[in-house]
Amino acid sequence: MNNYLTLEDLESLEESVNEIIRQKNNSEVFSSIGQNRRVALVFLNPSLRTRLSTQIAAEQLGMKVSVIDFSRHAWPLEFELGRKMTGNRSEHIKEASMVLSKYCDIIAVRSFADLKDRVYDQKEVVLNSFKEYSEVPIINMESSTAHPLQALADAITIKEQKIDKPKVVISWSPHPRALPHAVPNSLIRMAKKLDINISITNPVGYDLDTSITEGIEINHNQKEAFKDADLIYSKNWASFSSYGKILDIKENWMIDSEKMALTNKAKFMHCLPIRRNVVATDGVLDSSSSIVAEQVENRIHAARYVLKKLISHE
Amino acid sequence: MNNYLTLEDLESLEESVNEIIRQKNNSEVFSSIGQNRRVALVFLNPSLRTRLSTQIAAEQLGMKVSVIDFSRHAWPLEFELGRKMTGNRSEHIKEASMVLSKYCDIIAVRSFADLKDRVYDQKEVVLNSFKEYSEVPIINMESSTAHPLQALADAITIKEQKIDKPKVVISWSPHPRALPHAVPNSLIRMAKKLDINISITNPVGYDLDTSITEGIEINHNQKEAFKDADLIYSKNWASFSSYGKILDIKENWMIDSEKMALTNKAKFMHCLPIRRNVVATDGVLDSSSSIVAEQVENRIHAARYVLKKLISHE
Amino acid sequence: MNNYLTLEDLESLEESVNEIIRQKNNSEVFSSIGQNRRVALVFLNPSLRTRLSTQIAAEQLGMKVSVIDFSRHAWPLEFELGRKMTGNRSEHIKEASMVLSKYCDIIAVRSFADLKDRVYDQKEVVLNSFKEYSEVPIINMESSTAHPLQALADAITIKEQKIDKPKVVISWSPHPRALPHAVPNSLIRMAKKLDINISITNPVGYDLDTSITEGIEINHNQKEAFKDADLIYSKNWASFSSYGKILDIKENWMIDSEKMALTNKAKFMHCLPIRRNVVATDGVLDSSSSIVAEQVENRIHAARYVLKKLISHE
Repeated sequence: MNNYLTLEDLESLEESVNEIIRQKNNSEVFSSIGQNRRVALVFLNPSLRTRLSTQIAAEQLGMKVSVIDFSRHAWPLEFELGRKMTGNRSEHIKEASMVLSKYCDIIAVRSFADLKDRVYDQKEVVLNSFKEYSEVPIINMESSTAHPLQALADAITIKEQKIDKPKVVISWSPHPRALPHAVPNSLIRMAKKLDINISITNPVGYDLDTSITEGIEINHNQKEAFKDADLIYSKNWASFSSYGKILDIKENWMIDSEKMALTNKAKFMHCLPIRRNVVATDGVLDSSSSIVAEQVENRIHAARYVLKKLISHE
Repeated sequence: MNNYLTLEDLESLEESVNEIIRQKNNSEVFSSIGQNRRVALVFLNPSLRTRLSTQIAAEQLGMKVSVIDFSRHAWPLEFELGRKMTGNRSEHIKEASMVLSKYCDIIAVRSFADLKDRVYDQKEVVLNSFKEYSEVPIINMESSTAHPLQALADAITIKEQKIDKPKVVISWSPHPRALPHAVPNSLIRMAKKLDINISITNPVGYDLDTSITEGIEINHNQKEAFKDADLIYSKNWASFSSYGKILDIKENWMIDSEKMALTNKAKFMHCLPIRRNVVATDGVLDSSSSIVAEQVENRIHAARYVLKKLISHE
Repeated sequence: MNNYLTLEDLESLEESVNEIIRQKNNSEVFSSIGQNRRVALVFLNPSLRTRLSTQIAAEQLGMKVSVIDFSRHAWPLEFELGRKMTGNRSEHIKEASMVLSKYCDIIAVRSFADLKDRVYDQKEVVLNSFKEYSEVPIINMESSTAHPLQALADAITIKEQKIDKPKVVISWSPHPRALPHAVPNSLIRMAKKLDINISITNPVGYDLDTSITEGIEINHNQKEAFKDADLIYSKNWASFSSYGKILDIKENWMIDSEKMALTNKAKFMHCLPIRRNVVATDGVLDSSSSIVAEQVENRIHAARYVLKKLISHE
């Protein structure tokens, strides 16, 4: 593996999931493989889980970690080629990537979609620029369109539920702010690769990128979609067709105990952070059906697996 | 010890102080007890001494440290239960505590009083929420009403002066901004526990919480209060009765060499940061009677002792 | 060596450069000399290369690192003596230096020139205050008037080109913002010490401090200056005579391939960050004549050498 930009970088997602589950209780055995290696954690956006879990995973492997919140610690970055750099952005990605490559063995990058220009966001300019101009492997810590560390952790979490052929339903949730499509995109790709029975329920106007949802059932009736579900994955996203917009939705799409009761005693999943009583009620989040804590914990195991693969050129 | 929220969490403050003094020059002996353990240092407010001394103490024990300046690195936190989270605060303390508990073995938290609502501040909502929703021990790095790491360091510093039955006087100081009561509160509680002869001098209107000062002499005449003092502990706080207000005080409460000359050659203490020539003069701070540097150094020893106790479930 | 404030702190710059080149591939041999030692990296301004290279250098020596972005993590600092501290600055350098000295074995400081008051900037108030009030060695990570870690790395880079008696030309570059003189100042001092044939080309009105450029040729005609050059060192600075001003310059001082063609196949140097197509064209930066990456890499070796000297009291 040369980079971890999307799930496609894993030779076999299924084998990876199985291997991570085997390794989960054996973190000690890797404790020196990363010695004298350094990962740069580059954040262009906030992060709690990703920041901590990736740092912890790296240090479990004996690696050193340098965290860079770019625009605060260093200089705002320019990504456009050929640009006359007279504005606010005082360093170009070409130099920044070179510098990080000289100083670190792996560069992990977080850069959310701006949700202003779909064509631009789909190009993954930031992530691809890091990849193009770096001499070392790149890890995607959530880019405009993908969050493969979250999806890998979610694959582990789903597998660990030991449900035979689980029915997973992604349920769009209300949210006061416009959020990117990275998490549902990677979740759907993951489910497809693992042949998981996945479907989506969202209001009209909120259908995701059809190149990703192709072949996946989309139900605009939430309650109907919940029937027989074994796992409800709650997540908000802004409109994709009316790109980045928050549409006026009359029905209440928040997940509550009544809706969960329509399922096959489904477990509740969310990548966090979650807005309580907006996305889902306290009742759902505080119930025993919530497995968000397992998702959180699996972020470390997913990150450690990816770091180890990149270090050892597996 | 399950947490270190207040001095009351120590079984015996006196024994703790003695033990810390014994351990001061033996930091090496603890260098592996914290291996494979991680402390999260969670800051909702600025910090220099606490940030560094707690990090150093943890690393002296072999622990890893993750520093999180919450609202900058991650997401602004919601602490209210049952709240429909439609505002700026995008993560609830329930999830944040769970995440930090999954990733770290100890969570240390700094959250100052807002000084807007006394009832709210007295509830210690932030600290108690971390305690309630975390599965791991919590350390108070200064909360609304208490700063037990500072008070523990101060207890060591006072003991190290080797003054027989010292008379300690807390002297309120002027300050351009409204400051919380955490430091004097914990200082008074510490002195009571150690049976130290402590009294307070402050202007009328600045009396502290009577539930804390009960049994302690309060003198509204600073010069009179300084007589026979062996230790002057200077500190500003906002009014407690006119909660959070800065009152108009006519006399000059700044500590200068003339006032120090009224004492029994008293040592000068302050928790820092200190505003020179407002709280105390350059003359006082630069004199040999100032022991603020000893207080600073003892912060490491206090923090290491607390971390070690929590790690080893003593 | 007691501090590393300027290049003058090195007993012999030439021997230092030779020693660093010998050590470059032997970083392992130093891996324990810094054990139980800590360096504070204090930033009053942004930093990417210096932040990372100094952290890496310290950790290669086994040191611990505490990074403090002062005004964000801690408290804004007051540097004036005798000041009645009633403003925004809530901690005085006297206390801050004392605290860092108690907690760390070396303090590295970055504080750019404000470019508002030449007399003030020339006094190096921040750097000298840290030096005066600290009990431990100080490293200059770029001060108002000097950047000796950059100059040391540049000396290594120039030496590694293995050009016999190279002709080095410092070429002033256009820039949308006013930049300090620290980099060219230290570069010139370094060249003088190593007896390197150096000259400067800049527009009229942009001559540097004459006490530094004394004995150095200044050519106001860029193209003429480029003739026979073996190394072009590009750098912007604000006017020194019209202190801190950006003057109206009619000719285009940006470095492009045509200008580079006037040289003796010169290598292109810059300390970074660099504004592409303002300071120099993409063509120049992306050509094989650019050795900015070598400069970047040598920052680690320069920092490790300085740290090691200070730790071992050499």
